[in-house]
Amino acid sequence: MKVVLLAGGTGGAMLAEGLYQVLPPESLTVITNTADDLELWGLAISPDTDSVLYRLAGVFNEEAGWGVAGETFAMLGMLKRYGEEPWFGLGDRDLATHLLRTSLLRSGLGSAEATAELVRRLGIQARVMPMSEQPVRTKVTTPKGRLDLQEYFVREGHRLAVSAVEIEGTDQARPSPGVVEALAEADRIIIGPSNPAISIEPILAVAGASIDPARTLAVTPIVAGAALKGPTVEILLGLGREATPTGVARGYRAFASVFALDRRDAAEEEAIRALGYRVLVLDTVMGGPEGRRRLAAELLTGDPPADGPSPQR
Amino acid sequence: MKVVLLAGGTGGAMLAEGLYQVLPPESLTVITNTADDLELWGLAISPDTDSVLYRLAGVFNEEAGWGVAGETFAMLGMLKRYGEEPWFGLGDRDLATHLLRTSLLRSGLGSAEATAELVRRLGIQARVMPMSEQPVRTKVTTPKGRLDLQEYFVREGHRLAVSAVEIEGTDQARPSPGVVEALAEADRIIIGPSNPAISIEPILAVAGASIDPARTLAVTPIVAGAALKGPTVEILLGLGREATPTGVARGYRAFASVFALDRRDAAEEEAIRALGYRVLVLDTVMGGPEGRRRLAAELLTGDPPADGPSPQR
Repeated sequence: MKVVLLAGGTGGAMLAEGLYQVLPPESLTVITNTADDLELWGLAISPDTDSVLYRLAGVFNEEAGWGVAGETFAMLGMLKRYGEEPWFGLGDRDLATHLLRTSLLRSGLGSAEATAELVRRLGIQARVMPMSEQPVRTKVTTPKGRLDLQEYFVREGHRLAVSAVEIEGTDQARPSPGVVEALAEADRIIIGPSNPAISIEPILAVAGASIDPARTLAVTPIVAGAALKGPTVEILLGLGREATPTGVARGYRAFASVFALDRRDAAEEEAIRALGYRVLVLDTVMGGPEGRRRLAAELLTGDPPADGPSPQR
Repeated sequence: MKVVLLAGGTGGAMLAEGLYQVLPPESLTVITNTADDLELWGLAISPDTDSVLYRLAGVFNEEAGWGVAGETFAMLGMLKRYGEEPWFGLGDRDLATHLLRTSLLRSGLGSAEATAELVRRLGIQARVMPMSEQPVRTKVTTPKGRLDLQEYFVREGHRLAVSAVEIEGTDQARPSPGVVEALAEADRIIIGPSNPAISIEPILAVAGASIDPARTLAVTPIVAGAALKGPTVEILLGLGREATPTGVARGYRAFASVFALDRRDAAEEEAIRALGYRVLVLDTVMGGPEGRRRLAAELLTGDPPADGPSPQR
């Protein structure tokens, strides 16, 4: 069974870890969002891809929610000594990833090959593919102006209201080598529980044409009115969109036919079914490694949980 | 009084610190050897220049003899996790310098301007100039083949016999902007106590034509048959050269007219005087900050020490 996961850096990366635990490792392909990639001090930084790499390599920093476990920040401290004002966290360990990626790209590799090399070097058996090798960049409009995604997210601590999200570069961007084939061969495609507007829609904009909705399942990023982490609800509301599982399901309808809804939102099951989905009602919140494994297993079997059967449509 | 120091990364950098302490800071210009610069993982690394910067900024790592005080190596540890085999010490703090320099160079600055910017950012009042903006590279011939200087020095721990030293690129290299003017305006030029073959001769090869020997003093890098640090004696012997203060003085004769000899080698005073030098007999070994200050002061006054007068020639 071949599984492709579309992932951002938090919920999607967590689910990647769960899937990697329950699947034969070579069965899993993770396609990562690159629309919040950035370059700082000449380093090519790919935050969502890195979170997936670190999750799969078992070195993810759980406390911080990003970066490498046991991270230190001596380089950033010295940059401050030089009068720089770094707003993006560049951990000392994390830097090795950025340096190696940048160096591989400068040597002539595309970002798909460079990512595959990092994956191989970390001993990861799954495949991880950036959605595109061409630059795609999410820009958000806020009261402080039009910002790059990471400026909004990290520098401004996602405290600003977002009135528009534009994904630049999708007209020129093609799916990375291997992405179309992986989607074509997949027995199941999973849209991870990441922010639809800034993590998933960039992937869909680039590779959505290759996604067969009949084989695709989307996992709700919203549970009981809130996201696992981050400003998913705030952004959707700022955009005038419906910040509910039903709203998310409506947005994914062209790409998915199964929707995994959290038990706490079971009241929306009917509405989502009415959109044409088969609905799985599950505990979608992944508490720790065991929770990630459990959710992954339940999504793959598609079995409705024992205490809340969700008849197939 | 304007002073220009030619410096490598150990003795020369120490003397730079001493001179910076005793001179009005803006009186000092340090011209650094760049023939052992290297590029690793895309980073532009300039070891001798960095040692001078760190000495003058007061952040030099005295215990290690290079790099920044209190250094850590988390990035290198993670690079090893990626299967890299780093042989050159890239400390986490040190990395900030390499990243910033590389980033300034990529933005279009020449290395003289980039170095000046690092100097300014560190709050250093003296000027530090790389000898040339064009690549000059020292190659050493050893039983393991022809190596880059840092491969010989760091990777091989300078344990190999050196049978030849070639300084590549000097035909194309010009002195950095400001170097010729600094040498022309200098009241005193000091050739620091660095390795003649690998630290000083590259500078002389590029900028020697602008050095007036009448205003130039050379400090012995050899005391009682040994160097302060590093393989100076071994390299000179390997090249079939005379590894004594007299031998060094002979090599510098076209560039200098005053030679600072260590008291322990007073027996060579006559031989060096016979080469046409005025000789200062001093304690040239710099023990700690006070020793660096003392030597700098004695070199600047040119006063022979009280207990061993060395009459002017």
